[in-house]
Amino acid sequence: MFPNKKVQKLVGSRIQVEMKGDHSLLDGILKSADDYMNLHLEDTFEMVEEERQRSLGSVVLRGNNIILIVPAEKQ
Amino acid sequence: MFPNKKVQKLVGSRIQVEMKGDHSLLDGILKSADDYMNLHLEDTFEMVEEERQRSLGSVVLRGNNIILIVPAEKQ
Amino acid sequence: MFPNKKVQKLVGSRIQVEMKGDHSLLDGILKSADDYMNLHLEDTFEMVEEERQRSLGSVVLRGNNIILIVPAEKQ
Amino acid sequence: MFPNKKVQKLVGSRIQVEMKGDHSLLDGILKSADDYMNLHLEDTFEMVEEERQRSLGSVVLRGNNIILIVPAEKQ
Amino acid sequence: MFPNKKVQKLVGSRIQVEMKGDHSLLDGILKSADDYMNLHLEDTFEMVEEERQRSLGSVVLRGNNIILIVPAEKQ
Amino acid sequence: MFPNKKVQKLVGSRIQVEMKGDHSLLDGILKSADDYMNLHLEDTFEMVEEERQRSLGSVVLRGNNIILIVPAEKQ
Repeated sequence: MFPNKKVQKLVGSRIQVEMKGDHSLLDGILKSADDYMNLHLEDTFEMVEEERQRSLGSVVLRGNNIILIVPAEKQ
Repeated sequence: MFPNKKVQKLVGSRIQVEMKGDHSLLDGILKSADDYMNLHLEDTFEMVEEERQRSLGSVVLRGNNIILIVPAEKQ
Repeated sequence: MFPNKKVQKLVGSRIQVEMKGDHSLLDGILKSADDYMNLHLEDTFEMVEEERQRSLGSVVLRGNNIILIVPAEKQ
Repeated sequence: MFPNKKVQKLVGSRIQVEMKGDHSLLDGILKSADDYMNLHLEDTFEMVEEERQRSLGSVVLRGNNIILIVPAEKQ
Repeated sequence: MFPNKKVQKLVGSRIQVEMKGDHSLLDGILKSADDYMNLHLEDTFEMVEEERQRSLGSVVLRGNNIILIVPAEKQ
Repeated sequence: MFPNKKVQKLVGSRIQVEMKGDHSLLDGILKSADDYMNLHLEDTFEMVEEERQRSLGSVVLRGNNIILIVPAEKQ
């Protein structure tokens, strides 16, 4: 299964996304993803040392600044 | 709804954008967005610790250097 | 008006461009811009704390390393 | 053999991937790779000084933030 | 004149290129440039504080990691 | 000769590649290169201050994270 298909299969589930920039790890429910791996998450939190910090709500993430995506519960 | 469509739906409303580089968080009214997530904001401020710092007025942001986009009021 | 069109409308006027890398802010007259937001500026200066530092003359800027573009006088 | 073909030939074997961002080196079994070098790894660990640190399980890596890929056993 | 055309017109002349990464400024004779602003320079030097440091000879520069290009003599 | 053609002509010879990320300079025999300047090197070493440090063997390098390519012997 291609990596993008793998991401599509996670739509509706909680995932964690490592981003470039200051918010290193985000945790949220994946609502949609496109072929560039741009993502739309809901109920999103910024994670610091596995603790939920700030709530960010509905967030759009730019694909090229995503480093990695993992299913949240599998951490 | 695809992430880009989600961004298009925010046109006319105030959003916050985390960028790479020194201006980490910008707050402005989204005037337009294209398929590369290049954005045009008006009435833009640089945010530092949730406080409005410098006013930047009309700003064009290059899509690939956008990390995340959130609706401003939902912060 | 799409962000790229907004940039095209600034051709002939003075703009400020925040770049990745060491020259954080450049100030110059926009001579041309393409669809990738590659820019050609003339009479360009490096700005440090709103002061003109080094003169760079005619400069080509690579689009993907542009963070933001603002009209100079509106600062 | 083109670089992408070289990566395709590693599907099913353990590889190490240097990424931009905080997780500098990841070690996992390559399940799939696409033309953008987006990768899906299983049984993934974060490596610190050649030691397995955190287990990350199933991970999708965004191609543009991959720096290099090496077959794991050939280290 | 589009930015890429501006770069093409510099073929054969000495230019300075600011790059991402450790070699911040390179000075060399532009031998060729393509539409992605990948460049081939000859007789290339690494510049540190306007002094020629290491000689690098023939160098290929990846376009996306170029920040800016200036004609050398206009510095 | 276009930059990519210049790189193709180096196939079979030893080159040095400056990358983004921690491995700043890699030295290896270029086995293949594609239009995105993704590279496959064999007999690869990490160079630190012109000294061969770690051996990495067969390595695939992602084009967009390559800063510059030089023929090894011409250093």
